[in-house]
Amino acid sequence: MSAKKPFRPKARKPRGFEDRTGSVLRAEQHLISAATRIYDSWGFEPLQTPAFEYAEALGKFLPDEERPNEGVFALEDDDGQWLSLRYDHTAPLARFVAEHYQDLNKPYRRYQAGDVWRNEKPGPGRFRQFVQCDADTVGSASPAADAEMIALASQVMQAAGLSTGEYLVRVNDRRILDGVLETIGASEPDRRIRVLRAADKLDRLGREGVAALLGEGRKDESGDFTEGAKLDTAGIDTVLGFLDAGGGSRAEVIARLEGLVGASETGKAGLAALSEIHDVLSAIGVKDDQAVFDPSIVRGLGYYTGPVYEAELLATAHYDDGKPIQFGSVGGGGRYDDLVARFTGQAVPATGFSFGVSRFAAALSALGRGGAGDEAPLVIVVAAEKDRSADYLAMAAELRAAGFRAEAFVGGGNMGKQMKYADRRGAHAAVIVGSNEREAGEVTIKDLKLGARLAANIEDNKAWREEQPAQSTVKRDQWVEEVRAILARR
Amino acid sequence: MSAKKPFRPKARKPRGFEDRTGSVLRAEQHLISAATRIYDSWGFEPLQTPAFEYAEALGKFLPDEERPNEGVFALEDDDGQWLSLRYDHTAPLARFVAEHYQDLNKPYRRYQAGDVWRNEKPGPGRFRQFVQCDADTVGSASPAADAEMIALASQVMQAAGLSTGEYLVRVNDRRILDGVLETIGASEPDRRIRVLRAADKLDRLGREGVAALLGEGRKDESGDFTEGAKLDTAGIDTVLGFLDAGGGSRAEVIARLEGLVGASETGKAGLAALSEIHDVLSAIGVKDDQAVFDPSIVRGLGYYTGPVYEAELLATAHYDDGKPIQFGSVGGGGRYDDLVARFTGQAVPATGFSFGVSRFAAALSALGRGGAGDEAPLVIVVAAEKDRSADYLAMAAELRAAGFRAEAFVGGGNMGKQMKYADRRGAHAAVIVGSNEREAGEVTIKDLKLGARLAANIEDNKAWREEQPAQSTVKRDQWVEEVRAILARR
Repeated sequence: MSAKKPFRPKARKPRGFEDRTGSVLRAEQHLISAATRIYDSWGFEPLQTPAFEYAEALGKFLPDEERPNEGVFALEDDDGQWLSLRYDHTAPLARFVAEHYQDLNKPYRRYQAGDVWRNEKPGPGRFRQFVQCDADTVGSASPAADAEMIALASQVMQAAGLSTGEYLVRVNDRRILDGVLETIGASEPDRRIRVLRAADKLDRLGREGVAALLGEGRKDESGDFTEGAKLDTAGIDTVLGFLDAGGGSRAEVIARLEGLVGASETGKAGLAALSEIHDVLSAIGVKDDQAVFDPSIVRGLGYYTGPVYEAELLATAHYDDGKPIQFGSVGGGGRYDDLVARFTGQAVPATGFSFGVSRFAAALSALGRGGAGDEAPLVIVVAAEKDRSADYLAMAAELRAAGFRAEAFVGGGNMGKQMKYADRRGAHAAVIVGSNEREAGEVTIKDLKLGARLAANIEDNKAWREEQPAQSTVKRDQWVEEVRAILARR
Repeated sequence: MSAKKPFRPKARKPRGFEDRTGSVLRAEQHLISAATRIYDSWGFEPLQTPAFEYAEALGKFLPDEERPNEGVFALEDDDGQWLSLRYDHTAPLARFVAEHYQDLNKPYRRYQAGDVWRNEKPGPGRFRQFVQCDADTVGSASPAADAEMIALASQVMQAAGLSTGEYLVRVNDRRILDGVLETIGASEPDRRIRVLRAADKLDRLGREGVAALLGEGRKDESGDFTEGAKLDTAGIDTVLGFLDAGGGSRAEVIARLEGLVGASETGKAGLAALSEIHDVLSAIGVKDDQAVFDPSIVRGLGYYTGPVYEAELLATAHYDDGKPIQFGSVGGGGRYDDLVARFTGQAVPATGFSFGVSRFAAALSALGRGGAGDEAPLVIVVAAEKDRSADYLAMAAELRAAGFRAEAFVGGGNMGKQMKYADRRGAHAAVIVGSNEREAGEVTIKDLKLGARLAANIEDNKAWREEQPAQSTVKRDQWVEEVRAILARR
C-alpha cells in the first residue's frame, strides 16, 4: 500500500555457513542415530545442554591455543552478562556436571549430538557451524573407562558402514611423553606445551619441521617465526624417537615404550594405563587392526590429562580426476580430569570421545557409505486431471498404507512437467489416472527406472513410443500390487 | 604454577535456557524421529539451514508483532554485517528457496527439525531456545497442499501416541474474515491487523475483551491501553458472530460460513479453499473428530495469507494436587504466499506446519506417552573385584551381543555403592562375579525390580536376607540365559 519501493534483501546465507540437504544430510542423520543406538546400548544417557553458556563458564579451550580470544561467537545479554555459543560439547558438560555434582549418579555417562559453532575464518570445507556427537564418562579414573571410549569409537565406525581395515583408532597417553620430558629435564610447563604443539604437527610438517619446533624454532612459508621448545640435539632425538615408537601390535608398542619411559613415575603411570586399556580392548574384542597405540598422537586441546585417542578414516574416495581424497581424523577424545575442577576446585576424573559428524558424514557420502541412497523408493501419483486432487491424494495414502513412500503431485503443470519432476526426485514409479483410465476403471503405472535404462539403449524412437515397455495399465483393484511388483524388481 | 588464586567461574547456565535430560529428552527424540519417518513417507526431503542468517534476510516475523525489534539474538560479524539466530524454520526456508529458486524441483517439499532461539524474557516453562519440527510445501497454490499439512499434523499426533479424541487440528482460512471485513467496510490494513490480533486473543480475553479490542480499545489489568479496531456495534457483532461460527462437522461449518461471507470475492476464495481441504481430508481419511473448521483460529504471525491451522492437545494430565494440566496448542501453520517474494518480488505459493517439539514432548512426558520410559531394560555388571575390569567389560559386551542394554560399572566404590548406583539408574538386573563365584565358575544375578517389589512387602528382615528370593546363582555357561529369563518376566 505504500508508494515507497519495498526493500528487497538479498537471498544469501552468512559466509562460512551451509545448507545441508540430500545424501550428506541423510548420512549425518544415519550416523547420529547409529551412534545414539550404540551409546544407549552401552548404558549412556542422552543430554542436551543449551547452545549458549555464560562466556566465563565456557572458558577457552579451543584447539587453536595460539589465539585464545578468538573462535567463539559471543553476545551481550540484556543484563550485561556475556553469552557464548558452545564450541564443543565437553566444556558445557563440565559446567553441567559441576552444577549438579551432588545429585548426579556417578559415574555419569551421557551422550550428546548437536551443533557447535566456531567463529573462525571460513574456508573450503571449513564451516563455522558443524555437528558433533560426544559420549563421556564422568567420575571414573579407571583406564577401563578410556578403553570403553576407544571401543565405542570402533563400534561407531563399524556402524557407519566401515569394515576393519578402513579405519583405525590411534591411542596414546600424554603422560608417557611427560615422562620422557622429565627424564631429559624438559618438563617446565611452557616448554612442555611447545613440545606437545610441535608433536601435534608431525603429520603436517614432517620430522624436520617438528625437529625445528622442538629446537630453536621454525619459520613457515609466510615468514612467520614460531619459537621452539629449545631442546638440545639429544633431547630432540629422544622426543622424535618417542614419536616414532608406534607400529605393530599394541603389545609391541608397549614393550618399545617400556624402554623409552625411564624412571619417571608420570611416564610409568601413562604406560600402566595403556597396558590396562590393552587388556580391556582385547577382552571385549577390539583387535590390533581396529585400535593401535601411537605415541605421535597428542591432540591439540589443552585440557587432556592422560589417554588420548583419534579415529582415523583409512578408506579413500576419488575425485573426478582420479586423485584420492584422504579424509584423515573424523573424531577424537581423551581424559580430562581437571575440567570440572575449573568450577569446583576439585578434580573429577572424566574421559570422552567426540565425532565430527558433519565431517564424517561428508566422507561417508563421498564413499557411498553410511545410509546415503538408502531411502525407500518414491512413488509419485501424477495430477492427470486438474480437479481430482482428492482422488490422487487418496491413492498416495493407499500406497503409504501399503508401506511405500508416496507423494501425490500438488504443483501445477502438464504431464511432461510432472514426469520431469518425478525424474528429478529420483522416483521409481509414476501412477497415472487420466480421464481414459478413470472411465475404464484402470490405472497406468510407469516404471521410471526401467524406462530410463531402456531409453538409454533404444534407438527407434517410434517403436519406443508405441510399445511403452516400461509402462503397464491394470485394473483398479490390482494397481497397488502392480506398484509392489515394479518396486520389487529394482 | 602461579601463586595467584585461580578464577573459579560459577557453574550455572544462562537464564532462560535449560539442560534437557531423561524422559523429556527421550520423548523429544522419539517425536522427531516419528515425525521424520512420516514426512519421509509422504515424499518430503530433509533440509538443515544454519542457525545464523543475515539479520536482513531473516526479517522480523515474530509472533509478538507489537515489539518487532525484539525477540532475536543478533551479533555483528567481523565484517560488520549483522547475523541473527533463526527464531523459526520458515523465514530461513524462504531465504533458501529464494536463493536456489531456479534449481529447485517444484513443488519443493522439505522437513527440518532443530533449535530456534527467541531473545525474550524467560519465565516458567518459557525458554529462549526450543526445538521445532517443520514440514513445508513450496510452489503449490493448491488447497490440496494445505490439506496434506493438516493430515500430516493429525498423523504426527497419532504417531506420538495420541488417540482420536485426545487431539484436534483446528483449521480456518484468513480470507473468510477478510471477506467479512469487506462486507462491513472495515478492510483497511491497519484495522484488519487490529481485528486479527483481537480475534487471536479470544481464548485469553473472552468475548468481552475481544469486543473491546474490536471497538474503541481495551485497558488491561496493568492499566495499559490497547487501541481498538474502531468497529461499530453492528460490525463487532458480525465479527464475533463469525468467530463463533465453529462447532459441529466440517460440512456444517462450511454451510454456516456461506451465510456469513456475503458477496466478497476474497471471502468466497477462502471458503472455496476450506471446501477443497474438506474434500481432500475426507478422501484420505482425516475425520471430523481429527480436523475441524474453526473461524476463531487466526494465528498471530503476520505472514499468513490463506488457510491457517493449529494442532491442539485435548488430553489432560494432572498435577500432584489433582488439578488438571491443560496443554493447548502444540503446533500450527498456514499458507504464506508472500514470504519468498520479500527477496524476489515474485509471489511463491507456500504452506507449512510446525510442531513445538519441546512443548509437545514435555506434554507427552507428563501424559506418560510418546516413548518416555520405553528404553530397553538396563543390566549392570558389578565391579566386584577391583582388578577384574576386563572380565566385567567382556561380560557387558556379551550381554550387548545377546541384544541387551548393558554396562559394566567403571566407577569406584564398594558393593553397596554400586547397588545404589544400579538402583538409581533404574537398572533391571545386576550381574555379580566376586571371588567366590569366580572360583566356583558361577555368576550371581539380582533381579532388581523384583527385589524392590518384594522388599516393599517383607517385614522379616532376617528371612529376607537369608532367602534372597530375587537373586540366583547359576553356572557360567547359563548366565546370559538367566538374565534373559529375568528381563522376560518383568
